[in-house]
Amino acid sequence: MTSANHDDEPALPDGSGGLRRLRLDLSYDGTEFSGWARQPGRRTVEQVLADAIATALGLPAPPAIVVAGRTDAGVHATGQVAHVDVAGDVAGDVVPMSLGARLRGLLPADVALRSVAVAAPGFDARFAALARSYRYRVTDRPPDPLRRRDTLAWRRPLDATSMHDAAQGLLGEHDFAAYCRPKPGGTTVRSLHRLDVARPEPGDVVTVDARADAFCHNQVRSMVGALLAVGDGRRPVDWPRRVLDAGVRDGAVTVAPPHGLTLVRVDYPPDEQLAARAAITRNRRES
Amino acid sequence: MTSANHDDEPALPDGSGGLRRLRLDLSYDGTEFSGWARQPGRRTVEQVLADAIATALGLPAPPAIVVAGRTDAGVHATGQVAHVDVAGDVAGDVVPMSLGARLRGLLPADVALRSVAVAAPGFDARFAALARSYRYRVTDRPPDPLRRRDTLAWRRPLDATSMHDAAQGLLGEHDFAAYCRPKPGGTTVRSLHRLDVARPEPGDVVTVDARADAFCHNQVRSMVGALLAVGDGRRPVDWPRRVLDAGVRDGAVTVAPPHGLTLVRVDYPPDEQLAARAAITRNRRES
Repeated sequence: MTSANHDDEPALPDGSGGLRRLRLDLSYDGTEFSGWARQPGRRTVEQVLADAIATALGLPAPPAIVVAGRTDAGVHATGQVAHVDVAGDVAGDVVPMSLGARLRGLLPADVALRSVAVAAPGFDARFAALARSYRYRVTDRPPDPLRRRDTLAWRRPLDATSMHDAAQGLLGEHDFAAYCRPKPGGTTVRSLHRLDVARPEPGDVVTVDARADAFCHNQVRSMVGALLAVGDGRRPVDWPRRVLDAGVRDGAVTVAPPHGLTLVRVDYPPDEQLAARAAITRNRRES
Repeated sequence: MTSANHDDEPALPDGSGGLRRLRLDLSYDGTEFSGWARQPGRRTVEQVLADAIATALGLPAPPAIVVAGRTDAGVHATGQVAHVDVAGDVAGDVVPMSLGARLRGLLPADVALRSVAVAAPGFDARFAALARSYRYRVTDRPPDPLRRRDTLAWRRPLDATSMHDAAQGLLGEHDFAAYCRPKPGGTTVRSLHRLDVARPEPGDVVTVDARADAFCHNQVRSMVGALLAVGDGRRPVDWPRRVLDAGVRDGAVTVAPPHGLTLVRVDYPPDEQLAARAAITRNRRES
């Protein structure tokens, strides 16, 4: 029974087993958070999660956490993915299972740990991610009070069809500088796989579903801002594309408020491919 | 232009036009309310709405409001219906339209006025209702923080299929005394049209959809409590029906918490039938 653990008796790492990488799948209501990333004096998702992990594992300090999408203040997640490297003996799935139960007891009601597992070899929450998917929710009707935390209320009627048509002009690989908050030294070239606007039921919420290899800062909210200007008739359908082509930020593009935005999914290669990539990296290092 | 009104210049009733009945369609997040019905010193939906109507119309006191479903503390609504009788000249839809804009500006963020209109002749939000529909949401997985206000978290795995099978035993017209909070002098005979339990997507929320002519106090939440005992394996599938047949409250039936419950719809006869009913009532009175 030396390697068996019960849910109420988690095996804590003892520092003798090297590092093991854990993958964490998370949801959160971003309303009361100053975003993902740790900032002194602010309540952030990373801080809350790192504190809980430190308590659960008896670490002297909150561990570093690597995340797929560094969401802004007020932005939510139903499909966030992170990883953390912990020291010690982690036998199979035993520690993650008991760790999951302990973490769930330590996390506040606005963060849910969907799962925790030993990461496949080569997994990296940020650098192995193939795509991030976000959904923006906006309604031009009296808003459902139960969804007011994750749905923007828009005062003018929206034409979802013209928004969708405008969105198709942004697909593909482009320099999205016109839709990004400038960051010194960073590229703003991104590959936008999907930008679908739909009103699933008449009279219902308009959804904007965006998927790209990665998004630069403010990109989804800026694109949504441009599409809203099309949807309520202030701008023609080809305007968002013309803004893209101009290549500079346009003062007429407003950044849509954060609370309508949710990170819904992160895609990774199959585990076998992750392992192959890790092997290639290892071989390169050794040669 | 004497009878025309602009949105920003609503015609207020002057007391000379008799009474007009207005139908109000409402949604609310019940989390911060002590239910629908007015209670001294408590924040209730009725109070908040009546205060807003009084302010919008310049009434000396909050008006009486008649509602289809008197929801308990913590219970939500996406399809609540109410009516209020107001004095004065109401020309067509003009006053309700401007009244709607004014009310929306006066209501707090957790109450949404979906629409306001002059009610069809014979309409009564409570007594003309043919059926009330409620949805209960429960999850046996780590809950989505964005839906924690309207979804019960259940610690044990739920078998939605056995819950649905058990629910079918409760359909039809019965004395639901075993599932009702006793009320002196009131009947507990109700006609249950629908009680469907489903898990729309694997790993997703379990929904219980209930429709009846009317529900007695605590009935939906008590039935859900009995179904949860079946779903997590504590009771056999025929147990909810046996409780019904016993005809008395069973201490083993727990009343499910209010926050999972939402009033989603109220059905009324077509307007033409309402008018016919009103005519019959009038003829009876006059003969």
